[in-house]
Amino acid sequence: MSVFESDRDQPARVAAELSATPGWRRLTELDPDLDDETAATIIAEAAKIADAVVAPLNPVADREGCRLENGRVRTPAGYRGAYKAIAEAGFLGVEIAPEVGGQGLPVTLQAACGPFFEGACPAFMMLAGASRAAAHLMMSVADETIRDAWVPRLLSGEWGATICISEPDAGSDVGRIRTRAEQADGIWRVTGQKIWISFGDHDVTDRIGHCLLARTGDEPGTRGLSLFLVPSIRDDGTANAVTVSRIEEKLGLHGSPTCALGFDGAEAVLLGREGRGLPALFAMIEQMRLLTGCEGLGIAARAADVAFAYAVDRRQGGDPEEAPLPIVRHADVRRQLLALDAQTEILRAAILELAVSMDLARREEGAAAEDNAAFVAWLLPMVKTFGAETGFDVASGAIQVLGGAGYTREWPVEQALRDSRVLAIYEGTSGIQALDFLTRRLWREKGRGLADFLDRAKAAIEAARPLDADLAGTAERVVSRFERLSSVMMEREDVPRDGEAGASGYMRAGWCAISAVMAVRLLIAGTETPSQSALKAVARFRLHTLEGEMGLAEAQASMTAELMEAI
Amino acid sequence: MSVFESDRDQPARVAAELSATPGWRRLTELDPDLDDETAATIIAEAAKIADAVVAPLNPVADREGCRLENGRVRTPAGYRGAYKAIAEAGFLGVEIAPEVGGQGLPVTLQAACGPFFEGACPAFMMLAGASRAAAHLMMSVADETIRDAWVPRLLSGEWGATICISEPDAGSDVGRIRTRAEQADGIWRVTGQKIWISFGDHDVTDRIGHCLLARTGDEPGTRGLSLFLVPSIRDDGTANAVTVSRIEEKLGLHGSPTCALGFDGAEAVLLGREGRGLPALFAMIEQMRLLTGCEGLGIAARAADVAFAYAVDRRQGGDPEEAPLPIVRHADVRRQLLALDAQTEILRAAILELAVSMDLARREEGAAAEDNAAFVAWLLPMVKTFGAETGFDVASGAIQVLGGAGYTREWPVEQALRDSRVLAIYEGTSGIQALDFLTRRLWREKGRGLADFLDRAKAAIEAARPLDADLAGTAERVVSRFERLSSVMMEREDVPRDGEAGASGYMRAGWCAISAVMAVRLLIAGTETPSQSALKAVARFRLHTLEGEMGLAEAQASMTAELMEAI
Repeated sequence: MSVFESDRDQPARVAAELSATPGWRRLTELDPDLDDETAATIIAEAAKIADAVVAPLNPVADREGCRLENGRVRTPAGYRGAYKAIAEAGFLGVEIAPEVGGQGLPVTLQAACGPFFEGACPAFMMLAGASRAAAHLMMSVADETIRDAWVPRLLSGEWGATICISEPDAGSDVGRIRTRAEQADGIWRVTGQKIWISFGDHDVTDRIGHCLLARTGDEPGTRGLSLFLVPSIRDDGTANAVTVSRIEEKLGLHGSPTCALGFDGAEAVLLGREGRGLPALFAMIEQMRLLTGCEGLGIAARAADVAFAYAVDRRQGGDPEEAPLPIVRHADVRRQLLALDAQTEILRAAILELAVSMDLARREEGAAAEDNAAFVAWLLPMVKTFGAETGFDVASGAIQVLGGAGYTREWPVEQALRDSRVLAIYEGTSGIQALDFLTRRLWREKGRGLADFLDRAKAAIEAARPLDADLAGTAERVVSRFERLSSVMMEREDVPRDGEAGASGYMRAGWCAISAVMAVRLLIAGTETPSQSALKAVARFRLHTLEGEMGLAEAQASMTAELMEAI
Repeated sequence: MSVFESDRDQPARVAAELSATPGWRRLTELDPDLDDETAATIIAEAAKIADAVVAPLNPVADREGCRLENGRVRTPAGYRGAYKAIAEAGFLGVEIAPEVGGQGLPVTLQAACGPFFEGACPAFMMLAGASRAAAHLMMSVADETIRDAWVPRLLSGEWGATICISEPDAGSDVGRIRTRAEQADGIWRVTGQKIWISFGDHDVTDRIGHCLLARTGDEPGTRGLSLFLVPSIRDDGTANAVTVSRIEEKLGLHGSPTCALGFDGAEAVLLGREGRGLPALFAMIEQMRLLTGCEGLGIAARAADVAFAYAVDRRQGGDPEEAPLPIVRHADVRRQLLALDAQTEILRAAILELAVSMDLARREEGAAAEDNAAFVAWLLPMVKTFGAETGFDVASGAIQVLGGAGYTREWPVEQALRDSRVLAIYEGTSGIQALDFLTRRLWREKGRGLADFLDRAKAAIEAARPLDADLAGTAERVVSRFERLSSVMMEREDVPRDGEAGASGYMRAGWCAISAVMAVRLLIAGTETPSQSALKAVARFRLHTLEGEMGLAEAQASMTAELMEAI
């Protein structure tokens, strides 16, 4: 059965890729409650609820959008009920501790299930994403009272939350935040403007907790920043001094109200220690970058499904004296379709690899835990960046397969293109991710995450060699080239501006190396099921051009500041 | 002065690139009325009118869109006046003969001026594009009466026109057209459905002439197709049997009503000979593919201008104790900006090269005319495809430079992304262009256009060598690799399905070769003016990664049908 005829059972693909991920095997050893069957059941359930409850919201979210009425945000019909439904099914807190209402499952299962929801209606799911991020924050830095009051209600869908960081003059550059918090009579009060706040106000939950970064001391930059919780409604039931000044009109994600908020002496609770606001955010930022990857994957997987189905159905071309051929029969259309699946499945495998490593960083001990943590920090900027790119590219490629139809609102792929375009911008632009990858992961940490990756790469390639020596050889060459390039880039620590000029290319080379390793993983997965066969075909296709892509990335990485001086 | 500080005088860039185009020199030798100064004056005038008259329509076109009211299409406010204004300034018929109301200038000047209008409001300019295409059709196949009645009024903006080809089951595959024309009592009557008709109805002009492909004989495929003119209003002033059944809701180009039209025994005039409908369209198709390139260029050039201006203005990052830096100072932002200009200027140079060759194919004699014609046929699918890609990529890249702002409707780049996405679809998808490039240009014509390109390439590289031997060497290697790849692809004529699998990669390799040659042209242009200096910087940047891109294209070209079988 060819990949073009298989039933494109997405949950089965997740399960096949998960079982080919060595870290997942290790995780099941460490946790006797985990096994492939349980995972497959949860994943299938997620896909089912996402399709039944969330997907129907997607066109409505896009067409109706959100409105500001009498100072309050109105969301599209159906949001409230759907939010309750996914909360009741346990999907708001998959990886959060059972003591506060979560499922206590590994992050891996959140990462395996999340893309079904994110792809079904990315705009709506921004509320869940922000609320889950807030739950993570509270779990790590809030005191017990706050944690026990808020987290269970965030996970039950009664209350929601936001993350308030950006201001008009402080986007990527959080050190320039001007919102201030001052304490008087034991009460903190926050005054300032925040922008780009997803679900900054809405009518889906009864109360909203704004997790907000504000300046408390006189220290410049990020050192004077503290983290606060600003509830929309105070404990006595009265409204806090938070106002919505506007909803941004955006290219897409119309169903996610992106708000500008004003805080005018709003009462707040300090989360964690004063002056330690930014470090408190780090665990949450990790979750949000993984989430962006999941959003890209969810959007890509659905768009690819649409394109495959259309290509099987739509007839055009062939001998004019005979019935037209389904366009899936044309070689160039097949190439386009395989490219969609190739990008998508490599991303899925990388997301699973990242998520199991996040789990192992917590569940292993000693050096194993540290290695996994270093690997996570190294892989995160790539999953964020290429997750974003994959969502957008696959949406655009799906439009191309559909042709004129894809350009119309009759089909969902134009919305996917609009919705996905922001992924490369929020939660740290691709440029910021590339600097993180080069200056922190390689230079500052002396390539510790890289070293761990190279070990994983060698193991995967050796496992694949008996199955397909040629393809294993291709993957090996790509990884070796990346290893050599890393040595070159390491030396650029002495000329950081040259490094910065090549950072984006270097991270792309890293993604080529990840793609090589994930592709051989898909080869190892076996060919017993249609999903496994499809993944093997996709891996073969992906490896075909990977050395060429690595060559291009090397050229991009060799850019220098001098080239940018541009007489 | 660096490219980041120059005044980004787009008309000066056109003039600089034109003067570095050898075919333009030849054209001025053949036509004593043409010189650099005249050209520069016309180009500057086009830019001025486009900015003053057309650009203000763009946000209105997008927000208001077009509506179907009582069976008629209503266009946004301001269209009628603007259309008259560009007609009066002579820009509807730059390259059309003066005897019928045109300016009688070379196609080159149309191609040099067009992008200013296309970029200013691509949706609105679709009416001009269709009407100019119809004028070309009538000039080549209509009898004198029709020609003299219609062409002057199309160019004066009194009347408009459409090109009606596609039907629900005949998109790329025109051989399956089912609309029929029958003759009775000396009158042709057309019955059928046409879809994707740009400005299929509107209120900008008083009459619309539908140039329509319909079946007249029993021969299958394209052989039974004839070309007709179906006026919206008959000569006696009564309405013809043409109805608008809907306007498509699209991702972008909202200001261009894309109509589904019904013809119910509508009276028609045969254009040209019965059964020769498709050949009659060829000259027009050539113009439309050039136009698509110009649309991509116009959108890219404006989006790049927005990104550069934003990057100079917007401050973010740098030492937290000091004022934030303009983001143009960050190496990665400079890289992004240069990439926008690099894609744009290479496309501009290629469009000028194509246009001068179209002129020379008509104005030269004998072998020189034939060589130019072969080169035009060879370059057209690439200008169409990579013009489309450039418009979309540069719009998307500009959004990235603007970050969150770029994702909002406060800035014009999100509209540019939406408007440009269709360019790779209409007038023949990129997949169709790649098949044309491989199967017709290389296989059927035995690489005649390619041979002519290689001569031009050698001349450009030798001219550049004394100025910069390194960069000339890079260009030479890229061109040589393309030449070798062409030999490999030539042999695939025996296994056409393998050829088709690699066609897209092969055409991309062709564009790398074109980019190499256009980049060295920009080097030759000199550095006397800020525009010339900017172009040189851009060329250097472009050449830096070109061998890497060629390597990737080679890998894509080596794809085989077997890889697509995908077990």
